Amino acid sequence: MTTPLRAGVIGVGGYTGAELLRLLQAHPRLRLARVAGNSTAGKPLAEVLPHTLGVAGVGELVVESFEPGLARQWAESCDVVFCGLPHGASAAIVAALVRAGLTVVDLSADYRLEDVATYERWYGSHPAPELLAEAVYGLPELHRERLRGARLIAAPGCYPTAALLPLTPLLGERLIEAAGIVIDAKSGVSGAGRSPSPSTHYPEAAEGLRPYKVAGSHRHTPEIEQELARAHGGPVTVSFTPHLVPFSRGMLSVAYARATPGTTAAQCREAARARLGEGLVSVLPPGRLPDTLHVRGSARALLAFELDERTQTVLAMCAIDNLTRGASGQGLQAYNVSRGWDEATGLPLLATFP
Amino acid sequence: MTTPLRAGVIGVGGYTGAELLRLLQAHPRLRLARVAGNSTAGKPLAEVLPHTLGVAGVGELVVESFEPGLARQWAESCDVVFCGLPHGASAAIVAALVRAGLTVVDLSADYRLEDVATYERWYGSHPAPELLAEAVYGLPELHRERLRGARLIAAPGCYPTAALLPLTPLLGERLIEAAGIVIDAKSGVSGAGRSPSPSTHYPEAAEGLRPYKVAGSHRHTPEIEQELARAHGGPVTVSFTPHLVPFSRGMLSVAYARATPGTTAAQCREAARARLGEGLVSVLPPGRLPDTLHVRGSARALLAFELDERTQTVLAMCAIDNLTRGASGQGLQAYNVSRGWDEATGLPLLATFP
Amino acid sequence: MTTPLRAGVIGVGGYTGAELLRLLQAHPRLRLARVAGNSTAGKPLAEVLPHTLGVAGVGELVVESFEPGLARQWAESCDVVFCGLPHGASAAIVAALVRAGLTVVDLSADYRLEDVATYERWYGSHPAPELLAEAVYGLPELHRERLRGARLIAAPGCYPTAALLPLTPLLGERLIEAAGIVIDAKSGVSGAGRSPSPSTHYPEAAEGLRPYKVAGSHRHTPEIEQELARAHGGPVTVSFTPHLVPFSRGMLSVAYARATPGTTAAQCREAARARLGEGLVSVLPPGRLPDTLHVRGSARALLAFELDERTQTVLAMCAIDNLTRGASGQGLQAYNVSRGWDEATGLPLLATFP
Amino acid sequence: MTTPLRAGVIGVGGYTGAELLRLLQAHPRLRLARVAGNSTAGKPLAEVLPHTLGVAGVGELVVESFEPGLARQWAESCDVVFCGLPHGASAAIVAALVRAGLTVVDLSADYRLEDVATYERWYGSHPAPELLAEAVYGLPELHRERLRGARLIAAPGCYPTAALLPLTPLLGERLIEAAGIVIDAKSGVSGAGRSPSPSTHYPEAAEGLRPYKVAGSHRHTPEIEQELARAHGGPVTVSFTPHLVPFSRGMLSVAYARATPGTTAAQCREAARARLGEGLVSVLPPGRLPDTLHVRGSARALLAFELDERTQTVLAMCAIDNLTRGASGQGLQAYNVSRGWDEATGLPLLATFP
Repeated sequence: MTTPLRAGVIGVGGYTGAELLRLLQAHPRLRLARVAGNSTAGKPLAEVLPHTLGVAGVGELVVESFEPGLARQWAESCDVVFCGLPHGASAAIVAALVRAGLTVVDLSADYRLEDVATYERWYGSHPAPELLAEAVYGLPELHRERLRGARLIAAPGCYPTAALLPLTPLLGERLIEAAGIVIDAKSGVSGAGRSPSPSTHYPEAAEGLRPYKVAGSHRHTPEIEQELARAHGGPVTVSFTPHLVPFSRGMLSVAYARATPGTTAAQCREAARARLGEGLVSVLPPGRLPDTLHVRGSARALLAFELDERTQTVLAMCAIDNLTRGASGQGLQAYNVSRGWDEATGLPLLATFP
Repeated sequence: MTTPLRAGVIGVGGYTGAELLRLLQAHPRLRLARVAGNSTAGKPLAEVLPHTLGVAGVGELVVESFEPGLARQWAESCDVVFCGLPHGASAAIVAALVRAGLTVVDLSADYRLEDVATYERWYGSHPAPELLAEAVYGLPELHRERLRGARLIAAPGCYPTAALLPLTPLLGERLIEAAGIVIDAKSGVSGAGRSPSPSTHYPEAAEGLRPYKVAGSHRHTPEIEQELARAHGGPVTVSFTPHLVPFSRGMLSVAYARATPGTTAAQCREAARARLGEGLVSVLPPGRLPDTLHVRGSARALLAFELDERTQTVLAMCAIDNLTRGASGQGLQAYNVSRGWDEATGLPLLATFP
Repeated sequence: MTTPLRAGVIGVGGYTGAELLRLLQAHPRLRLARVAGNSTAGKPLAEVLPHTLGVAGVGELVVESFEPGLARQWAESCDVVFCGLPHGASAAIVAALVRAGLTVVDLSADYRLEDVATYERWYGSHPAPELLAEAVYGLPELHRERLRGARLIAAPGCYPTAALLPLTPLLGERLIEAAGIVIDAKSGVSGAGRSPSPSTHYPEAAEGLRPYKVAGSHRHTPEIEQELARAHGGPVTVSFTPHLVPFSRGMLSVAYARATPGTTAAQCREAARARLGEGLVSVLPPGRLPDTLHVRGSARALLAFELDERTQTVLAMCAIDNLTRGASGQGLQAYNVSRGWDEATGLPLLATFP
Repeated sequence: MTTPLRAGVIGVGGYTGAELLRLLQAHPRLRLARVAGNSTAGKPLAEVLPHTLGVAGVGELVVESFEPGLARQWAESCDVVFCGLPHGASAAIVAALVRAGLTVVDLSADYRLEDVATYERWYGSHPAPELLAEAVYGLPELHRERLRGARLIAAPGCYPTAALLPLTPLLGERLIEAAGIVIDAKSGVSGAGRSPSPSTHYPEAAEGLRPYKVAGSHRHTPEIEQELARAHGGPVTVSFTPHLVPFSRGMLSVAYARATPGTTAAQCREAARARLGEGLVSVLPPGRLPDTLHVRGSARALLAFELDERTQTVLAMCAIDNLTRGASGQGLQAYNVSRGWDEATGLPLLATFP
């Protein structure tokens, strides 16, 4: 047994932070070294995340404050830092950590877009645009080679993950048309983060269902289009519609695309298996459809493909746990790849069922 | 105050039957006269539907058995019969009731399709095809004129209602292309009926989300296409995908269609207001999106339209309560129209919120 | 048909206000005249309560601001005012309305306690203690006589209602000991009100269950003890434990009490039927247990009694909808009684099932 | 790294079986060797438990049939067998396995009661009463010593676990009276098993709450009383009330007992810490109350104690995950103890939060 590497978590008080703690605890090659979070600094973790109370090595950790000037000090006590800060707040801190020599897995959107102009249109000015070229988009199934040795991993969010996994193989194999792709995605409420708001107040989020930020207004759209364009070899524009679903965890994406002539569902399945590998992705056999319940708490993604023959529409479906696969778990998977470890190291495969 | 008409309910033990009882109790011009249901015959209603226990005039009613030979006898004690039997089981009974002179509101699919061949492809042989021509498709906003005086009303289910309300005005006004329409619809679990099954067992239906019967295999597809074709004036083929969502009541349908040149979202809203009227349909203003929570227990439908300008995709959205608007409530609304009453008579407008 | 009386609602933006609107709309003898709510003043109701959008006579009402100086003006345009303000904020406004000659149904706790010292221990100083004697505790089954002609009705909350309905008959008939009563009650999240907070943030309220304010620290305790003491004819002290349950509406209370010698479950049922009447209360027969699902959206209360013979413990159980029976609906029921109308006038009896 | 022992699972198609698979996969000293389940024999596990599809070493296992004659053969390929069969069906199979030399962890109730007469009153005749004396009640915190080297571990269910953990230390330290204990317990729906039924049909289990099998009629009552009596040193009779709560996993038990003179909440907390140890049990500090959400997917139990001073009632509370702690996880914990391993080996400590 080798000595585990030391992991730090910044932004520990949110749901991606909480999920990182759970996953790190089960990881055989990493151990939690320190945690930070500015709004909760100074408190024991058990106060910030009540479920950690009584868990030795976790609950009694004191949340530190963090600012870029501390990066060098963190570089001495950590081998890798996972950063779960909100979009915008993350960029400068991640830059400082990378410059201090740390490997950083950034769970925000701040290093996911290659084009700084696109970033600034959606998120505002970027403090370290020169690092965008170095950052690797952390969807392992698409970028395994580029991830090896990466020092700055920009782990994608749940919506892009669930859209890209089933669509990129189809575009790459020219099984669907690039024009007219519709993505109808449904997210559990934890995807909205941990800050209370009227729209996530229990009585108004439970027992209801609603779309939001429709018609191209959701800021995950450019990220999806960037990676689809890479797979297609040319620009791709999609119509993306997110929904809020009354459960805490889970995401289902159903993408609709026009089949190119002759495409079969079997070809779609085969393309996905060939291009994505079968590590943490499972392509369902004909007749099986993905259910978010079957990946709850698991880092796996379930993919399914069907062809609506009457309309020549390909359905490219994906179910994931938005936290275990979409954010924290995927960041860990990408880090595993960057180290050359088996990509599933320490990640839960079997869902917590039911 | 006029004497209320007498209503009978057949198939009272299911969810559409239960909802009919609730709505009839609040209806000022109808009173519940008798109830039947073969699998529960002989029991007091309070045993079959436990929430009716203690409600005078309801809970102590004894569920009768019914067979076509009793139609004449029911015609003497009822003015209208609501029939909530399963598809297939309904056709012969409805036929007998109509022939005995009763007005019948059939909540099954048995009289919704005009073309007997289409019916038989999806449901099996039809015992009374000659009545298909007389039956009126009971979506009042589309068929107000034909419903006046109708004796056989085929009330549509929840999926067709939620798809047709927002799409038919757009097709009618040539605001969208008829080709390539995608309908992504999400239903609460009560839509699956009252019989326990593995897929509706609580631990496997809660906290998860899944598509089912995708790629043209759901039997509401022909019904949707029939009415879209009528609005369009020519055949329409859609790709329809239903999902099961973890709440009891509610349905959201988001349809994606290519805009015809020059179409705006404002035109879509205006077309819906003009063609559907604003009785039990509300078209949301720009920036508001439909939430099933806002129509829970209400007979209203919330519609919204947005244009994704980058892809020229129209989003035609609709939220309803699958029981209050999609089945039982809509049957009652159609019956109100058939009698010449205000179509909202006795129907709940304000949702049970939250 | 007589002309409906005019009802005003103050504090319309919360859940009790929303429920009042729903119930008033179905009430044949009342019509909504005006609405007020300070934090939302100036907005159309459809913005404050989105489910009212499109409902004629409701959604387009503008929320007014209110302060005591306006009481006289309200007295000219209303016959009754329902006040759904928070505890503490309600007292002075209610006093002004009563002094202006209006009948007021107060849904807060401000006039529920007869003893001003007790009030001040739990809620702070009271601006109008002289009105406490005039106020009638608005649990109709306990105070039908005193409610006739009442001008100030202090409608009880959900916890006291669910505890008092099954316990008061048993104490009144000496079927249980007054000492050692334990009340274990479970509430849906709407009972916590409409303001977002960490504990009602969807991901931390869904899929979990927790007690709160245990061991005598919940401020509904004195209200419960006041009414139990009245029924018993001497002081009663209870151990009351509330819980938060992951659904929006519903309350279940199970009280445990020592049987007096010879008590049977049948005697308990009979006592409840005799003392409460069977208007909006149903005592379940042996073998049936109350389910909150069976009263969702209904103003009825379901009671059940069982005797654990081995331990001589009486279980006194009650299920209600915390909004339709526990607050708004009960206020309306009490008002019906005060006017001499049938107490169920305009109230929903059948639950929205499922 | 030592070679893992080989574990078999019988009754794999239910929820306790599914949870065992998840836990075994993360256990460093055990590996899944074979699985059996009579109603699903012959099928690949991925058909029986769809979430296992694609998980190497699990999903492709074929479910075997099992009958006692095969025990000897299993003894050759397994070191330990976990048996998740229903009560009654388990006894003979477990007996055969034990006689064949295997260590068996039985998750049914068949070996939990020491007194065969009591067993037969609740469950019917017992095929191997002579093994009752050898079986060790598998609640590790109560029986760590007896568990060492045990060959037949009768792992308790969720209700007894949640009741016994907080109550036994109080009885053992004479902090509460043995008479008059009331246990009000609330269970997630997975506790009802995997067979669909009307009461677990989603629309009738979601969004509602109900007690069931009240007043001493639930068959976990004798098991609770047996272990309380052992702690107390004399007979104990409790009034136990189970409830069904609308979430899949989780159990909360609140027990009410009369304090003996002078008892403080601090003494209760101290007694629990001293008697139970702090391995997988956490006693919450004053002011913190247990939430089932905080142990979802975790093998830990959260305990809290409060004293209602006005009524001298002790509240002894416990939150667990009914599958991870109440059944499968606890069986594994007991097995860990029996082997002399750290009792938390392989068990998840941090909840899947949120």
